[in-house]
Amino acid sequence: MNQQQEDSNTGLEKLEGLASLVRIIRARKPLVHHITNMVVMNDTANVTLAIGALPVMAHAREEVEEMVSLASALVLNIGTLVPEQIEAMLLAGRQANERQIPIVLDPVGAGATRLRTESALRLLRELHITALRGNASEIGALLGVEGETRGVESISLSEERESVAQRAARQFGCCVTITGARDVISDGRRLAYVENGHPLLASITGSGCMATTLVAAFLAVEPDAWKASIAALVTLGLAGELAAQKAAGPGTFRSHLIDAIAALDEETIRRGQKVSVIA
Amino acid sequence: MNQQQEDSNTGLEKLEGLASLVRIIRARKPLVHHITNMVVMNDTANVTLAIGALPVMAHAREEVEEMVSLASALVLNIGTLVPEQIEAMLLAGRQANERQIPIVLDPVGAGATRLRTESALRLLRELHITALRGNASEIGALLGVEGETRGVESISLSEERESVAQRAARQFGCCVTITGARDVISDGRRLAYVENGHPLLASITGSGCMATTLVAAFLAVEPDAWKASIAALVTLGLAGELAAQKAAGPGTFRSHLIDAIAALDEETIRRGQKVSVIA
Amino acid sequence: MNQQQEDSNTGLEKLEGLASLVRIIRARKPLVHHITNMVVMNDTANVTLAIGALPVMAHAREEVEEMVSLASALVLNIGTLVPEQIEAMLLAGRQANERQIPIVLDPVGAGATRLRTESALRLLRELHITALRGNASEIGALLGVEGETRGVESISLSEERESVAQRAARQFGCCVTITGARDVISDGRRLAYVENGHPLLASITGSGCMATTLVAAFLAVEPDAWKASIAALVTLGLAGELAAQKAAGPGTFRSHLIDAIAALDEETIRRGQKVSVIA
Repeated sequence: MNQQQEDSNTGLEKLEGLASLVRIIRARKPLVHHITNMVVMNDTANVTLAIGALPVMAHAREEVEEMVSLASALVLNIGTLVPEQIEAMLLAGRQANERQIPIVLDPVGAGATRLRTESALRLLRELHITALRGNASEIGALLGVEGETRGVESISLSEERESVAQRAARQFGCCVTITGARDVISDGRRLAYVENGHPLLASITGSGCMATTLVAAFLAVEPDAWKASIAALVTLGLAGELAAQKAAGPGTFRSHLIDAIAALDEETIRRGQKVSVIA
Repeated sequence: MNQQQEDSNTGLEKLEGLASLVRIIRARKPLVHHITNMVVMNDTANVTLAIGALPVMAHAREEVEEMVSLASALVLNIGTLVPEQIEAMLLAGRQANERQIPIVLDPVGAGATRLRTESALRLLRELHITALRGNASEIGALLGVEGETRGVESISLSEERESVAQRAARQFGCCVTITGARDVISDGRRLAYVENGHPLLASITGSGCMATTLVAAFLAVEPDAWKASIAALVTLGLAGELAAQKAAGPGTFRSHLIDAIAALDEETIRRGQKVSVIA
Repeated sequence: MNQQQEDSNTGLEKLEGLASLVRIIRARKPLVHHITNMVVMNDTANVTLAIGALPVMAHAREEVEEMVSLASALVLNIGTLVPEQIEAMLLAGRQANERQIPIVLDPVGAGATRLRTESALRLLRELHITALRGNASEIGALLGVEGETRGVESISLSEERESVAQRAARQFGCCVTITGARDVISDGRRLAYVENGHPLLASITGSGCMATTLVAAFLAVEPDAWKASIAALVTLGLAGELAAQKAAGPGTFRSHLIDAIAALDEETIRRGQKVSVIA
């Protein structure tokens, strides 16, 4: 299951053109509207720029509908949630749905508090979410799977992550990515693994949120949410691998990670991607 | 129009002493009160420290009047605006006006949403703003000039930037800086270009906000807003040039940029400044 | 008073095991709940991860009681205070007190505005705070000692810092740390100095907040707040010394500081700590 595209016989032909998506983002410079948490705003804005898209952070209820109308993708991230923000997310999300602008939801800390679990479920119920990205216990919590979250960190889960991803994809009608040492991406029908990455990604805050932002950037140019999610995770993981070669710890890693995302090209992605497609 | 101070015959004698302003900031350590957006708070605080001033971020309506009274300059930046913040800006701004503390306004995203355009115009109407700093489409939007903003990024403008800057300066009664590959600074009477800078400045989030913060730091020691704005843009542009020599991409550039601002001295500024004065 | 542990005869035996606390944090990975300011959220989350603990930032009144119940320490930092946040801090704090979860208070800018001074005093009155960390004028302001704060920076104080720390510790019934070139730590009975550190720590925003976060991480595994506070200040100061060797200014220093915290081990701490215990 861990084969490079070149020699894989497990459906990678379906992923043709994955590497070229970065070029398309850079050519189109799509606007990605974020309603996101205060911890990672700066980092995710810089990741958006590094991949070649344009970020805008706007969360006032008075302007989110207007702002999202200008965007090619919307990020909803509940990492430092307050109730007013949920309202803003619903307003922006409904407008995005009406205009068929893809939405990525990051249910940060779902399972840790009722506010987070219920808010994420409400967004999934009232909006058409295109892609969902979380760690195992966050996605598990949305399905009621028992697991252990410590704050916003996933500790363990009582069900296989593949099964959780597939069930969540079917239940919520969207593409689901569970990130971890091996990322699992399912749209309910297709399942893929991405094994790019480096332990240093887990040593900095917001690498999950960066993954979510990248999913949005790829969704802005690729309508197949499964492909867009795979491309995003390959991008982050591969950039993490390259950054780790230059880093002396999490502080310098964070700077090199942004450099590496900005420097990624089709050839590097084509050669470095570790994707396996199941079924 | 692109001449260094040494051989310019276009009014640069008016800018004598520009390079010494950095030394004065470092000697006086003026407090710069920011009511600003959540994306760039950390970066602009670090830029304020790097130039030698002291930052304070405070936006509660209950304290902004008291806080600004301690400050030597006030930054109003509408990058992640909510209505409560406008009220705080008006309270702080009125107090600043009463005490003749200079105010810099950064109309982030004006033109993208009504909330932003109208809020920026309200601040310009109800307060005496000393300096305004934005990109071409933001400043254009405040004058009703047709242009294209994508989120908070300026795409194009239907009128010459020099003319927009001059008209805005006259209409709003303040010094106007339009930043871009070539910065245009006009107080309605005088016009200057700053050609320091590097493309990497556009690759990180918040470089415009950093420019605004630097305008405030220079205004805290230089009452001529036109000179202060020029000095700020030279500082950021020159630091960008120096940082780019060490950077391997936008992530490392951001760290080196702060280093370069902190390391700038009079001699480097005097030699490196690319300022042209028109009329 | 400035002796290394090896040859000190001033009570350092009381600090036995200080260096091993880092190992304990890394083994237990305690969750540290922050209700903190928007300027430093990202930095303090990264510092928490670097020392080996897990950060969670949550400030909605609807979830803070639930979140803090999962945590091993709580940080209350008033750096960008709004009244709603005080309510959230009181809710979380009462829950923490009930569950005997230690609380660290950072009274950022106390003395600068009434909102800050009074809010900090209210938290100290209504909650049982375990440790208080501020600069000299902030702690002084809470006691009514005359001093000069410029925004959030301490300028001068009319009373000796040792005396202020001891009086504050007795009055507020908690361990008090006054940070500066030489840190003073008193629990009202015992007094220690930490002389680790580097001037570059004062050149970046949020190094005080990082100290506070580290106090919380150590408190999560060490019930003696005086020992925990000393360990935290040694950690930050020593990491600052090591980072300074690699840094070319405040921007690169900030990255190397996170690297250095993540790389600290018992041996380095044991050799590098500059602690003196008085009485």
